[in-house]
Amino acid sequence: MVIGLDIGGANIKWASDKGSHGILYCPLWKDKGMDNLEKMLVELKDSLLPEDSRKVGVVMSGELADCFDTLTKGVISIAGVCERVFPDSVFLSMDGTFEDIAGVRDKPMKFAAANWMASALLVGRTFQDCVLVDMGSTTTDIIPLKEGVATARTDIERLANSELVYSGVLRTPAACLTSSVLLRGHRHLLAREFFATMGDVYTLLGWMDLSSYPWETADLRGKGQKECATRLAKLVCSELNELSIGEVKDMAKQLMEAQVYEISTAIERALSAHNLSMVVAAGLGEHLIAKACEEMGVECVLMAEKIGESSLSLPSHSLTMLLP
Amino acid sequence: MVIGLDIGGANIKWASDKGSHGILYCPLWKDKGMDNLEKMLVELKDSLLPEDSRKVGVVMSGELADCFDTLTKGVISIAGVCERVFPDSVFLSMDGTFEDIAGVRDKPMKFAAANWMASALLVGRTFQDCVLVDMGSTTTDIIPLKEGVATARTDIERLANSELVYSGVLRTPAACLTSSVLLRGHRHLLAREFFATMGDVYTLLGWMDLSSYPWETADLRGKGQKECATRLAKLVCSELNELSIGEVKDMAKQLMEAQVYEISTAIERALSAHNLSMVVAAGLGEHLIAKACEEMGVECVLMAEKIGESSLSLPSHSLTMLLP
Repeated sequence: MVIGLDIGGANIKWASDKGSHGILYCPLWKDKGMDNLEKMLVELKDSLLPEDSRKVGVVMSGELADCFDTLTKGVISIAGVCERVFPDSVFLSMDGTFEDIAGVRDKPMKFAAANWMASALLVGRTFQDCVLVDMGSTTTDIIPLKEGVATARTDIERLANSELVYSGVLRTPAACLTSSVLLRGHRHLLAREFFATMGDVYTLLGWMDLSSYPWETADLRGKGQKECATRLAKLVCSELNELSIGEVKDMAKQLMEAQVYEISTAIERALSAHNLSMVVAAGLGEHLIAKACEEMGVECVLMAEKIGESSLSLPSHSLTMLLP
Repeated sequence: MVIGLDIGGANIKWASDKGSHGILYCPLWKDKGMDNLEKMLVELKDSLLPEDSRKVGVVMSGELADCFDTLTKGVISIAGVCERVFPDSVFLSMDGTFEDIAGVRDKPMKFAAANWMASALLVGRTFQDCVLVDMGSTTTDIIPLKEGVATARTDIERLANSELVYSGVLRTPAACLTSSVLLRGHRHLLAREFFATMGDVYTLLGWMDLSSYPWETADLRGKGQKECATRLAKLVCSELNELSIGEVKDMAKQLMEAQVYEISTAIERALSAHNLSMVVAAGLGEHLIAKACEEMGVECVLMAEKIGESSLSLPSHSLTMLLP
């Protein structure tokens, strides 16, 4: 049996080569985050069938969580927990090679935020020349592939090349995407406060059903449309007594457009810089990416049509396919 | 003795007509926030000299906190706590009149976010025609005064008129103010995550000493320059091993400029819309406002030069002067 683990700052994503997979909400930056990570991995291990031979591949991006003094310490801590629970863990580096825990301790920064490289390696086997766009709960990876190969880059390099758009479908604070919305004919400045997230936007617009996805709302209240609208109304210091649902939906639409516009710009840049013409979309937001591509007149392949729900956790799924 | 109370979502600000005053960190949206409010008010009461006659004036903006189902319920709850601790409390409405708890229960929305009106009434006694700009930890009020009078407006109306810029010196998430920074000659997109606040920016730039001000940092770590720089580096998914302090300071400068630009634009709009030519600046960020005015070539009076540290909590100070 082969297991793939993708340890993010907010979620653990896992997959097996038998087709099982899951997403566990595990915010590392919160109290006892790292203890919870270990506990959840132990539970995951116990839930799997006992096997004599088991390979575990690991990628991560959780080293950026606030609980770590430095990225290096974060990488080593996360790898250490994985290795304690699954002693036979191997870790994918930015160079595309698997190494054991000793390799991680030797050059930890090679393993920081290398999770997108797992996806790039797998997708590059099928689609030689494309831009892989994986829109998740928190970030959107925009990965140019030429002859099946992606260039190794750190996160800061990817931000500088618009290959990492740090905004996603669920956790992103909605007030970070634009400074104002048009409402009742007037531009309204937004409250720069953690009142609402993009999950509220997509729920209210009916774009996706996020109720089964692990998602901590901004006010820790429910995920229904009315609760989402209430949170969004707060972005203009208001509420549903003062604004109609239609008005809040119109606000939500503008927030969606601001997010999609930024991602579309980054996709266009990647297509043009690398002389590419096709997008492969994956992740929780792949239908948004497909819509953006349609508007840009760009061919778009949906990973969900190839691998089903595994598209939601492409890096961990990829690990199960990549491990020898 | 006259006491002024300004109950915000994050801070209680109080002042007395004897010149004493204080700021207490009390995040209402957190666990037991309202219990803490009551406890802190009781402690404040106990710390004051017992007096036969005591007047207490209250304004608020904390009704927007996530612990309340609606603004109306928030106003009534906050007023209720104030009245339990100080039974002789009176509440300032948006119309500029003081009413007792029965008045609040009758028309609660008249008392929502009316704290800036206290300041407007006081400043209007001295400066007939000006734009009062009170830049606090979380928001910046931009209040046009004509012949000493400000127009009553709700928060949503003020957002639509750029009279409320919901961004401040301390608590504002730094990733909400601009989508990218220029670093090493390249535009870097920012991580839309709650990694750093504007307090980190102003501390790192040496603009103000915030160490004595109640301030919960994004990662709950310290307030030193290195800790602030570490948080800011995370906005480009980086750290101080990878970026120099000079580079992070340059990022901080761009974030400051983005914030000041937006506020300057709002001030210019208020000056021009109401044919005014002078600014009166108050609050934690009043020196930033003074600098912005200098760059715009607009006369600026600093409240700190008139009332000293009371400028940091102008609404509660104003209440002590306004109460008959």
